[in-house]
Amino acid sequence: MLARRGWLSLSVGRLCLGGNYGSGMRYFEDLRVGNKFNSADYEMTEGEIIEFGRRFDPQPFHTDPAAAAGTLFGRLVASGWHTAAVSMRLMVLGEMDLDGGVIGQGMESLRWPRPVLPGDRLRVVTEIVELRPAPARPDRGVVKLRCRTYNQDGKVVQEMTATLLAARRPA
Amino acid sequence: MLARRGWLSLSVGRLCLGGNYGSGMRYFEDLRVGNKFNSADYEMTEGEIIEFGRRFDPQPFHTDPAAAAGTLFGRLVASGWHTAAVSMRLMVLGEMDLDGGVIGQGMESLRWPRPVLPGDRLRVVTEIVELRPAPARPDRGVVKLRCRTYNQDGKVVQEMTATLLAARRPA
Repeated sequence: MLARRGWLSLSVGRLCLGGNYGSGMRYFEDLRVGNKFNSADYEMTEGEIIEFGRRFDPQPFHTDPAAAAGTLFGRLVASGWHTAAVSMRLMVLGEMDLDGGVIGQGMESLRWPRPVLPGDRLRVVTEIVELRPAPARPDRGVVKLRCRTYNQDGKVVQEMTATLLAARRPA
Repeated sequence: MLARRGWLSLSVGRLCLGGNYGSGMRYFEDLRVGNKFNSADYEMTEGEIIEFGRRFDPQPFHTDPAAAAGTLFGRLVASGWHTAAVSMRLMVLGEMDLDGGVIGQGMESLRWPRPVLPGDRLRVVTEIVELRPAPARPDRGVVKLRCRTYNQDGKVVQEMTATLLAARRPA
């Protein structure tokens, strides 16, 4: 739908440094149900899988390739929370580009139908599924979206339905 | 319900090194609806909030205290995915101590009703809300749990309802 961005590092710089953050391209009024937004892709290295696992999900199937062989998974796999964190990064830096940022209210569902393996390259497609006013916040609208994370084979490794608050265009 | 563990670092060592991992105290048969399990606590430092934000949720309210003042939050707050990752760590290392590990099937809901601020100390209480067989996996049972993450003032900062697969006691 939109040209795929090739400049992830530039995006990171722009957002992290906060230079012109908030000058995103889209307000609530610019979104339509059915819009889809792509992301760059992200390689899940064995080193990062182990580092994240040791810090946040210390179980042998996330931290130790040898010990992982004797577990339910039979090999090292990424923590689902690592996949979720990387998916957030890809969505924040992706095409959706909301003015005021991506501010989640909550998830209705979050599933990991397939394990993420070392070397997998992940990308995210975010689809708008519902738009409605935010009664308590007249300057914002509620956006329900379905965010699917795919591996390099086009298989879904995470599916999330979430609601977020998007800024309305200033009068 | 059980004595609160004070030896988080020992737990980390045990699980990360994989020494006697899998010798957890509890199988599916040992769980009862209504059981509650505590965790140690975890301080969310400003440095870690910014580091996590830069890597996985690069928006100024997670990465830059000065720029955060001009955003919806008005100050630096932790990414919800950071809170989720820390909550997973606390649950994995906490009292529940499932044999075979904590293997999530999916979340039914995940909400962040209050922001997490630098210096907050988080802890998790996990409650068993449903137990049923896993038709496709006779060696496992399905556990539905509600996992609430509290700050040092006893306020809920994350609430999650999730299902996981727990190992049955070998015959």
